[in-house]
Amino acid sequence: MIERIHRIVIIGTGLIGASTGLALREAGFTGAISAFDASSLELEAALARGAIDSLAHSRAEALELARRADLILLAVPVLAILDWMHTLAPILGPHQLLTDTGSTKLQITEVGAKLFGGESTAGFLPGHPMAGKESGGAALAESGLFRGATWLFTPAPSESSELEAEWRERVATFGARTLDLDAARHDEICAWVSHLPQMLSTALAALLEDTFGDDPAGRAEVDAIGGRALRETTRLGASPYSMWRDVALSNTEPVAATLLALEQRLQQIRENLRTPELREQFLLANRFRSRNQ
Amino acid sequence: MIERIHRIVIIGTGLIGASTGLALREAGFTGAISAFDASSLELEAALARGAIDSLAHSRAEALELARRADLILLAVPVLAILDWMHTLAPILGPHQLLTDTGSTKLQITEVGAKLFGGESTAGFLPGHPMAGKESGGAALAESGLFRGATWLFTPAPSESSELEAEWRERVATFGARTLDLDAARHDEICAWVSHLPQMLSTALAALLEDTFGDDPAGRAEVDAIGGRALRETTRLGASPYSMWRDVALSNTEPVAATLLALEQRLQQIRENLRTPELREQFLLANRFRSRNQ
Repeated sequence: MIERIHRIVIIGTGLIGASTGLALREAGFTGAISAFDASSLELEAALARGAIDSLAHSRAEALELARRADLILLAVPVLAILDWMHTLAPILGPHQLLTDTGSTKLQITEVGAKLFGGESTAGFLPGHPMAGKESGGAALAESGLFRGATWLFTPAPSESSELEAEWRERVATFGARTLDLDAARHDEICAWVSHLPQMLSTALAALLEDTFGDDPAGRAEVDAIGGRALRETTRLGASPYSMWRDVALSNTEPVAATLLALEQRLQQIRENLRTPELREQFLLANRFRSRNQ
Repeated sequence: MIERIHRIVIIGTGLIGASTGLALREAGFTGAISAFDASSLELEAALARGAIDSLAHSRAEALELARRADLILLAVPVLAILDWMHTLAPILGPHQLLTDTGSTKLQITEVGAKLFGGESTAGFLPGHPMAGKESGGAALAESGLFRGATWLFTPAPSESSELEAEWRERVATFGARTLDLDAARHDEICAWVSHLPQMLSTALAALLEDTFGDDPAGRAEVDAIGGRALRETTRLGASPYSMWRDVALSNTEPVAATLLALEQRLQQIRENLRTPELREQFLLANRFRSRNQ
């Protein structure tokens, strides 16, 4: 295969963007990796870590780099991705590929089909690596972040370009499996397996903070008594709002539906603490876990 | 100090009972450890693991052993602990100590004060090691299970006996910290840090099983896409009903109160997915986690 991707621009050098740069290098990519981030600290950290080899000091410089890139990766929150898509569409051309790592895909995929569906436009491949940590930033980036993870794509139903095929192969060299999904289905499944766990962990941690935050004795007891169960179920409570605001805004209906279903399930358990129905709920949960280790 | 505990009987050789036997041995206890369990399989497994050195083949034999023991440890579910307390009270005497590992403490402590408060009765020290796994059984027992964990006691407000002091010292040799709590406070705090995380994990796993259990394609997508967030928030879903039924029955009001509070918090988040109130919830959760690592 003739390699066509020689110049990559990463927009957003947080955990995902910087880890992608490191993974590219570890897998032997020898082309240029330049980047832009609204935070010069993140950008400098990515450079210092070796995730990128040059940087743009302004959005204008970033657009110049994007104009000359073979692949542009948008690794910023969803609403910022949508902004960049609108900004980049008129200045990119047919021999370029734009792709992203946004957590929700329906809006991005629909906008992508409108902005990038023509013969004179760049290609657009909506993507979403299922990897992350409860804290972000280039400082926590790892070349192995995507190893064993699934990197999802929600492409529009059209023929795959050579650039798309090459990017998919690159992603596979990170140790990730790739999987194509319908964009709406992606957002629904992610609401269940990612957004709902996040919201319930945030809810539990916020509730505990409201209950014990102003009570030093209670806090000490919670610390002394809480074990792995509490740590694991509240771990995602450390996730920053900045990362999740855009998920909540761009996937509101599916997230609300899963939250409502969980509220009703908790109520059902609460009303059956002393009845055999509680047993049914434990058996269902046991069955789920016996399949999902 | 003169050691008075030479013969220990463990009633219930599941994870906690068998681990206690192993921890006693590892810490150098050289006395006799005999045991009884309603399941002869658990009992044989505990013997094979070296957690105990002799066993009772029937409840009658167990009572005979208890009569001659210095310390009797009840490591069965809460309702079974209450049964054993009633059975043992008339046959134990003042030079013996009864203690337990039950997950809820108010009922046990109140019954203990009635049955064991007299001069001719055995001593009773209600206990609760904050250690466990989502699966039980002697096969998973470990001598190090209590290392770094907190072993709670909820004693009646009376002078501590020498036997009690010696058992507390033994527990410290397991690597556990000991902490005394009021029994009602214990049950309230445990509802927050242990019972609520369990119920929400069961609720989430049961809900996912109901949603995707009969849909092989959906199950495959959940498996492919779900990552650490899903694994951690549903891990406790593997816990058996048999362990939790007694918690739900003996701590109904505190558990119901925490469940209701969580339902309301989830509703608040659901109704504010598109408002700045979501930010407040994330900030509260962040603050909780920055204190509880």
